[in-house]
Amino acid sequence: MLRYAVIMAGGSGERFWPASRRARPKQLLRLTDPDLSMIEEAIERIAPLIPRAQILIATSELLAQPIADALPGLPRENILAEPEKRNTAACLALAAAHLQHRHGHDAEIVMAVLTADHQIGAPDRFRATVAGALDFAATEDALVTIGVVPTRPETGYGYIEVAPSPTGDGPPEAGRPIRVLRFREKPSEPIAREYAKSGHHFWNSGMFFWRVSSLLRGLEQHMPNLATGEHAMVDALAGRGTRSLRDVFLALEDVSVDIGLMERAGNVWVVPADFPWDDVGAWDALERTRTPDELHNVVVGDAVLVDVKDSIVFNEPGADQLAVAVIGLDGVVVATTRDGILVCPKDRAQDVRRAVAELRRRGHERFT
Amino acid sequence: MLRYAVIMAGGSGERFWPASRRARPKQLLRLTDPDLSMIEEAIERIAPLIPRAQILIATSELLAQPIADALPGLPRENILAEPEKRNTAACLALAAAHLQHRHGHDAEIVMAVLTADHQIGAPDRFRATVAGALDFAATEDALVTIGVVPTRPETGYGYIEVAPSPTGDGPPEAGRPIRVLRFREKPSEPIAREYAKSGHHFWNSGMFFWRVSSLLRGLEQHMPNLATGEHAMVDALAGRGTRSLRDVFLALEDVSVDIGLMERAGNVWVVPADFPWDDVGAWDALERTRTPDELHNVVVGDAVLVDVKDSIVFNEPGADQLAVAVIGLDGVVVATTRDGILVCPKDRAQDVRRAVAELRRRGHERFT
Repeated sequence: MLRYAVIMAGGSGERFWPASRRARPKQLLRLTDPDLSMIEEAIERIAPLIPRAQILIATSELLAQPIADALPGLPRENILAEPEKRNTAACLALAAAHLQHRHGHDAEIVMAVLTADHQIGAPDRFRATVAGALDFAATEDALVTIGVVPTRPETGYGYIEVAPSPTGDGPPEAGRPIRVLRFREKPSEPIAREYAKSGHHFWNSGMFFWRVSSLLRGLEQHMPNLATGEHAMVDALAGRGTRSLRDVFLALEDVSVDIGLMERAGNVWVVPADFPWDDVGAWDALERTRTPDELHNVVVGDAVLVDVKDSIVFNEPGADQLAVAVIGLDGVVVATTRDGILVCPKDRAQDVRRAVAELRRRGHERFT
Repeated sequence: MLRYAVIMAGGSGERFWPASRRARPKQLLRLTDPDLSMIEEAIERIAPLIPRAQILIATSELLAQPIADALPGLPRENILAEPEKRNTAACLALAAAHLQHRHGHDAEIVMAVLTADHQIGAPDRFRATVAGALDFAATEDALVTIGVVPTRPETGYGYIEVAPSPTGDGPPEAGRPIRVLRFREKPSEPIAREYAKSGHHFWNSGMFFWRVSSLLRGLEQHMPNLATGEHAMVDALAGRGTRSLRDVFLALEDVSVDIGLMERAGNVWVVPADFPWDDVGAWDALERTRTPDELHNVVVGDAVLVDVKDSIVFNEPGADQLAVAVIGLDGVVVATTRDGILVCPKDRAQDVRRAVAELRRRGHERFT
């Protein structure tokens, strides 16, 4: 059976402003590794398991070229540009259409849907988990996810719930698929604490594994318009249909695959994983994804710190790097590029979006 | 009698980094007025009283050209470059030598020594005070200063003490010269509170008024080497002496005129003044010298503030202005230019010098 990876890389990642911009969002930044952008890391991570010829990138028209530039080792035709911003369900229908166009309707293909902008540690364990999930999806008519075993009561993630183990609350066995009971939204602090120790809740990693045929069966049942759209896109790609790919795509529902499909389907499974995982949601994530110094500061690029602790200072490295000095502060984010500066407490890092929106409102799109 | 103003403009003003640089210190910045640098303000302020042809600027060789560029209306020969950094006593001896060279040894000249980098409000009252001090100095063999009537228990300034009024502690009469008892260093908080209400203590404004002949008499008595040096500089300027101006200047004492002359002389007078005055010592001064908004923020240039109060945000205006966003902070300074950024609490604004020193230590002189 053919194995493909589809890396979803259409996100806009505004919360990393000023480093992130419309044409250079989070997945194109070197946030977690000093030498590789996050999407390069994602490719490097999966390539030992799935060769580059079978890695598709699904992204926006705006980002297709910047991503191609960042990934010279990837065949250009493997970068799929969504004609407009829809959500993950439409994105994956487009990817399925490309695979069916490339290999024919009857080809048996199993696909790993991966993310471009999350940090994943222990790549060997990651690949072993992916390999197990692909094997399971290849043999079962199943929609499979990876659930990360929680290490802290995180309130910023969605959770996947399975039935409690009949033999008690022992930890789940990594790699063995378990039937999913339901998906849970981002929890409150007390509920997150319960989930973290329950043994039957996992962080929703946003990774999926299924045969193309299983995906289409699921869409037919739960998102029939999307299933029809997928067929029309295969026709459009082959030059057969009456509507352009763009026209078909624009008519697709704007719904996430989690809500549109996974939360409705009965054949959903989770493979528990114990590799380190972080969604790198905002600047404050850098204190988890980089190693802080003895004053608990994370400093990227050159910066002068005087009496500063528990802070994140990101001065975008490069020949035109600015001079940055921070004095006497505690628990702040200072992030700079050659034309933009953000200063906020770590616990306000989510609100960067508000600042970006205000910059646009003032007509300063060139900075966003 | 000839009247001259000598504006001392040799300071380096590191505490306004990143706006201040070696070749563009505080007096060349638009800190207190959106359209004028501080030295332009100083000229505009005194020019209605003393014409530009009789305004000398004493500065360093590094700054002579930038200052000339900033002051196209001033005769170029009125900008005096000190061959090296000495202190205010040597600076004023050089200015006296230039005046004697220009007008001859026997000319009767009275000079106002003014500052280039302080904020002064109520310019009419300022000029009236200066005019009174010049008139007094023209007729008396006196070394005259302006003392600002304190409006708060400021611990950052030096004070001038006069004898308590025999009729009680009533406020001093602005404009009437009073004999000075002594100079007082920057006081502690409780002592500053006493001074602020005593009625016989004034802020030392660093402005002086004297005839050239009175200055030279004072130097002969209290800094005889400087008096000799002044004569040698007159000779050097006339091409008569055996030593160059530079050689003479480099041998002068490195002492302030306050310590070397004023604190030792017996004929020192203070003219009380009630105009607003601020030495604009560091970034936090902007909350006094500019008008804060309703959240007590002072914002210079464009910046996005979200939930910010009691803060100073300076984004150097200009075509290459950066995009600045500050979120959720209270009582901070964020100061940016197109190649440098400072972030600190307002009460650490004095420590900017430490950051500048560290930048130099790291070899980043180009940013300082």
